[in-house]
Amino acid sequence: MANFGIILQYDGSRYNGWQRQGNTPDTIQEKLESILERLYGEPIDLNGSGRTDAGVHALHQVANYRIPRILSRYSCQEIQDYFNAYLPADIRVLSVQKVEERFHARLNATGKLYEYRIDCGEIARVFDRKYLYRVNEPLNLPRMQEAAEYLTGTHDFRSFCSNRQMKKSTVRTIYSIDFDLSDGILSIRYHGDGFLQHMVRILTGTLIEIGSGDMLPSQIPLILEGRDRSLAGFTAPPQALFLVDVYYDTDH
Amino acid sequence: MANFGIILQYDGSRYNGWQRQGNTPDTIQEKLESILERLYGEPIDLNGSGRTDAGVHALHQVANYRIPRILSRYSCQEIQDYFNAYLPADIRVLSVQKVEERFHARLNATGKLYEYRIDCGEIARVFDRKYLYRVNEPLNLPRMQEAAEYLTGTHDFRSFCSNRQMKKSTVRTIYSIDFDLSDGILSIRYHGDGFLQHMVRILTGTLIEIGSGDMLPSQIPLILEGRDRSLAGFTAPPQALFLVDVYYDTDH
Repeated sequence: MANFGIILQYDGSRYNGWQRQGNTPDTIQEKLESILERLYGEPIDLNGSGRTDAGVHALHQVANYRIPRILSRYSCQEIQDYFNAYLPADIRVLSVQKVEERFHARLNATGKLYEYRIDCGEIARVFDRKYLYRVNEPLNLPRMQEAAEYLTGTHDFRSFCSNRQMKKSTVRTIYSIDFDLSDGILSIRYHGDGFLQHMVRILTGTLIEIGSGDMLPSQIPLILEGRDRSLAGFTAPPQALFLVDVYYDTDH
Repeated sequence: MANFGIILQYDGSRYNGWQRQGNTPDTIQEKLESILERLYGEPIDLNGSGRTDAGVHALHQVANYRIPRILSRYSCQEIQDYFNAYLPADIRVLSVQKVEERFHARLNATGKLYEYRIDCGEIARVFDRKYLYRVNEPLNLPRMQEAAEYLTGTHDFRSFCSNRQMKKSTVRTIYSIDFDLSDGILSIRYHGDGFLQHMVRILTGTLIEIGSGDMLPSQIPLILEGRDRSLAGFTAPPQALFLVDVYYDTDH
């Protein structure tokens, strides 16, 4: 089999997330797969590194697909150009590369970096408003950083997962949570080995509630121990969340 | 009379330009004036530094309004907060200041800076695509710069004006045309004493035709001399044009 690795970028605003799902239209995976089917003349499965929710964006998403070598008649540049000719302007393929046959974008991913962008400037931003979450009350950044320290490390994040019937392990490791405040935009970057459904958005909602004084940093250990979604903060809206990078142990 | 100077920013995407016009709805001037009327309880005329076309944006637009001192019961901060509370998210008032009684945003303006943003990178941009004009063919920047030198200075720009019945002078001075290419985005900045209807967009369309090889820099003097709109290039679309600054000789 020939195996192709794809790096892509998308504005998730008008999509029902990454993942193709039964009769839900407008997923990003489906857009890409329909172009691959047109190119090769048969249905092809594309593996994404992970789902992104409806409305969530990706600066750098990774995917791969395998095809029998006999069907592999296009160069990487031809495949990329074909994608970009037929994709809508809110999805772009940044690169296509041949990768090792065993590479799988989801199974081999060892870490991800997400960024959540909060507009907390004195005057709300005009031009990137659709990619920001506006918070009007002042946010206490040192308290948010204190809370982030409790969240960093290996924990059971069941309280930060929207799927109440989650049967698999809800233990994840957050390597770091970094804050950058510049020009009125507070960016929170979450680097972890993987994230549960809505986890980054619930972490962000909780950090915002701590920043605005509705919750205390010292509540974090109790929220983690409680393993109950209702203990954590609100789910911050999707339009300000970006998948920024996906990490693999080996180059591919 | 009390005179207030306003600095504002707007995303022009969904507006029919700055200027209130008979029964054309959705102008930026009208949005602002309706809020002033609500604040003061009577109709108030707002003078903009100049019109921007439908779909054109402003990073820094200047306007002023005068009211009898007896009606002037709000502080600058109160006026700004009132605007930002009632304006849609695509218009923001950046500042309100008391200015000299004789200050007039349009009549006293001595110069303007416009920027046109062209996406000519290898892969079209995803997130700011609505504020860019995408050009697929390669652009020859030195030729565009050579053409810009012919355009700089005091000329009759009738060939670069969309209003064929223009009765007033079409002589304007362009102080500078600067090019900045970074990260696949070519920004062209036009600094002049004033611009005719669609002038910046026709200048840009002409420079793009020169960059792509459809016209030659040496045609510029002939286009200027011909005083005929049909000699110049196409009118570049509005969504990539920004009013960046307005200049006044005196501080106000």
